[in-house]
Amino acid sequence: MDHLFQLESHKFERGRGRCPFDPSSSFTSILIGGELFTGLYSDYWGRDAALFRTMNRMAHLRTEPDSERLLKEPKFVGSYMIPDNEDHDDNKVYFFFTEKALEAETSTHAIYTRVGRVCANDMGGQRMLVNKWSTFLKTRLVCSVPGRNGIDTHFDELEDVFLLQTRDNKNPVIFGLFNTTSNIFRGYAVCVYHMASVRAAFNGPYAHKEGPEYHWALYEGKVPYPRPGSCASKVNGGLYTTTKDYPDEAVHFARSHPLMYQPIKPVHKRPILVKTDGKYNLKQIAVDRVEAEDGQYDVLFIGTDHRRGYDPEFEKCNTINHIAQGCLN
Amino acid sequence: MDHLFQLESHKFERGRGRCPFDPSSSFTSILIGGELFTGLYSDYWGRDAALFRTMNRMAHLRTEPDSERLLKEPKFVGSYMIPDNEDHDDNKVYFFFTEKALEAETSTHAIYTRVGRVCANDMGGQRMLVNKWSTFLKTRLVCSVPGRNGIDTHFDELEDVFLLQTRDNKNPVIFGLFNTTSNIFRGYAVCVYHMASVRAAFNGPYAHKEGPEYHWALYEGKVPYPRPGSCASKVNGGLYTTTKDYPDEAVHFARSHPLMYQPIKPVHKRPILVKTDGKYNLKQIAVDRVEAEDGQYDVLFIGTDHRRGYDPEFEKCNTINHIAQGCLN
Repeated sequence: MDHLFQLESHKFERGRGRCPFDPSSSFTSILIGGELFTGLYSDYWGRDAALFRTMNRMAHLRTEPDSERLLKEPKFVGSYMIPDNEDHDDNKVYFFFTEKALEAETSTHAIYTRVGRVCANDMGGQRMLVNKWSTFLKTRLVCSVPGRNGIDTHFDELEDVFLLQTRDNKNPVIFGLFNTTSNIFRGYAVCVYHMASVRAAFNGPYAHKEGPEYHWALYEGKVPYPRPGSCASKVNGGLYTTTKDYPDEAVHFARSHPLMYQPIKPVHKRPILVKTDGKYNLKQIAVDRVEAEDGQYDVLFIGTDHRRGYDPEFEKCNTINHIAQGCLN
Repeated sequence: MDHLFQLESHKFERGRGRCPFDPSSSFTSILIGGELFTGLYSDYWGRDAALFRTMNRMAHLRTEPDSERLLKEPKFVGSYMIPDNEDHDDNKVYFFFTEKALEAETSTHAIYTRVGRVCANDMGGQRMLVNKWSTFLKTRLVCSVPGRNGIDTHFDELEDVFLLQTRDNKNPVIFGLFNTTSNIFRGYAVCVYHMASVRAAFNGPYAHKEGPEYHWALYEGKVPYPRPGSCASKVNGGLYTTTKDYPDEAVHFARSHPLMYQPIKPVHKRPILVKTDGKYNLKQIAVDRVEAEDGQYDVLFIGTDHRRGYDPEFEKCNTINHIAQGCLN
C-alpha cells in the first residue's frame, strides 16, 4: 500500500484537537474509518489535555475540560483500535498514557500508567456530557516486580507500547516498555499483557470515592444499565443505537466513575525483562514473533537514545580500557 | 565507669517483656533509673510485638496487644531517653522502628520508619488503658530525595540510628541510616534530624481516620486536655501528678489517635549521603563531631556486613584485575 501525501496549499483547516500547539508536547493519534482519534494538549499554554475525535461525519467529541478525574497532566504514549467482537459498533479505542495518580495517598505524588478506553461510535450524552465521551473508562496498567513483605517495585512511567498482532485481531499481545519515576533509581522493565486481562479490568468493579476524606474504594452498589463503558451495539442487546439514548442515570454514573478498581497485571505478574544497569535510556520497543526449530520466539527490539558518535560513556570506556566491547555490554 | 557483671545462678526472674523469646528477633532496650524500657516480640510465636516498661518500683506497662494501629509487624532499631526540659517528670523515651504503614494506600503494602514516644513516668489509665501506655504517640520519619514532578525517592527501611550528644542534652542530633524497601533497587541514605523537628511533629496535628472507607486525614476537631501524649508533670500545669488521673476523654482520644499527621523531615529536606553503587550492605552508623582548623566536622563511621576474608565480590575483583583497591572503593 503506497501512500502519496501532497500539500493542499489552497485548503485550510482548524487544527485544534487534531495536533498539539507545541510540536514537542506529548501526542498520540489514530485514524479509524476516516475519524481521527487523538490524545493531546489542545491549547497554547499546554494545560488542556484531552482525548478527541474529530474530522469526519461524526460529531466532534472530547473529554470534559478541567476534569482532573479524567486526565491529570497526562503523557500520551499510544492509541489503538482493538475490536471486541465481529460487531463493528462494539469497536473500542484504547489510549495508553501516564498521569498523576488521583487514587494515590493524598500526601504523596505518584505517576501511574493508564489504559483509557472509549467506544469508537460514542456520540456523547443527550442532556449531560453533550459532545463529550460518554463511554470513557480507565484503569492502572501495572508493571512491577514482586518483593519481600509484599512490597513490589513498580515501573510506573510508560515509555512506549507495542501491539503484536496475532491471527486473531481481537487479541493482539501488548508489550509495554516502562521506566521508573525515581530520579535516584533508574531502571527499565518490559511487561506483557493479554487482552483478556485488559477486558477483565474494564468488565470488573468500578472505583468509587464517596467524598474528599474518603479513599478510592471498591464500588459495591447497583450498576446502571447499559453498563457504563459499554457501546451502543447489537452485541449489548441492541436496545440503544446511540449513546445519546442512554438513560441519564447511566451517563451520570459513567461521568462520576471513570476509574476501574482493578489494575491490569502483566503475564506471570512480573516483567519479562528488567534492566537496572543504567547504561542506556530505553525509549522504544518493537516485537517480532518468529518460528524457530525449537518453537516460537518473541524477539524484542529496544531502541535507546544513544547516538554512537556522541556517547560520553562509550568514549570514556574506550579511552581507558581500549576494550569498547566490555563497556557496551 | 567499669561495670562488672556476674551471673546470679541462684536467682530466677521472669523474662517476659524484658528480652525476646527468639534471640535473633528484633529488640531494643534502654535502662532509665532502674526501669527497663524495651521494644520486642514477647511471645514464642513472634506475634506479640510491644513496647514494655518492666523491672522496678513502677507498674509494668505495655502497648495494647493485637492493636495494629500501634505496632504492625515492627522491626525495633533503637531507643533513647531525651529530656524535654529540666522537669524529670516530663522525660520522654523515644523508640525508633519500622513497621507496615497503616496509612498507605489500601491496595499496596509499604514499610515506614517511625519514631514512637512515651512519657517515662506513664502510669497507664484508670478505667481505660489500665497498665497500658496512655501517652504513646508515633509519626513517620522521612528520609527521601526530592524528585521531578514532586515524586520523591524514599528510603523507608531504618537500619540504624545514632544520637550525637551535644552540650545541650535536650537536643542531641539524630543520624539515621536507611535502606530501600525494594528488592530491585538497593541503596542507602543517611539523614539527620533535629529535635526541634521531632517535637514539632508530636506537638502538631493528629492523624484521624473516620472509618474503614476513609483515608487518614488531618484531625481538625477539638483536642482534649491534657493534650494526649503530654506527661503528668509540673511543666504541663501540674494539674495531674499521674496519667491515671487524666480524664477519660483524654485517654480515649490518645487510644484512638496514636499517629501524628505530620512526618519528621530531615535537615535540608534531603539525605546528607546517598549510596546506590550496591557494593556493600550498610548496617551500622556512629558519628564523631570533631573540631578542625577550618571548623566543625561530623565524621560518619558506617559499618557494613562485609567480612574481608569472605567477600566473593572482593575475591572476584582481586582475581580478575589484580587491583583490590579499585574494587573496594
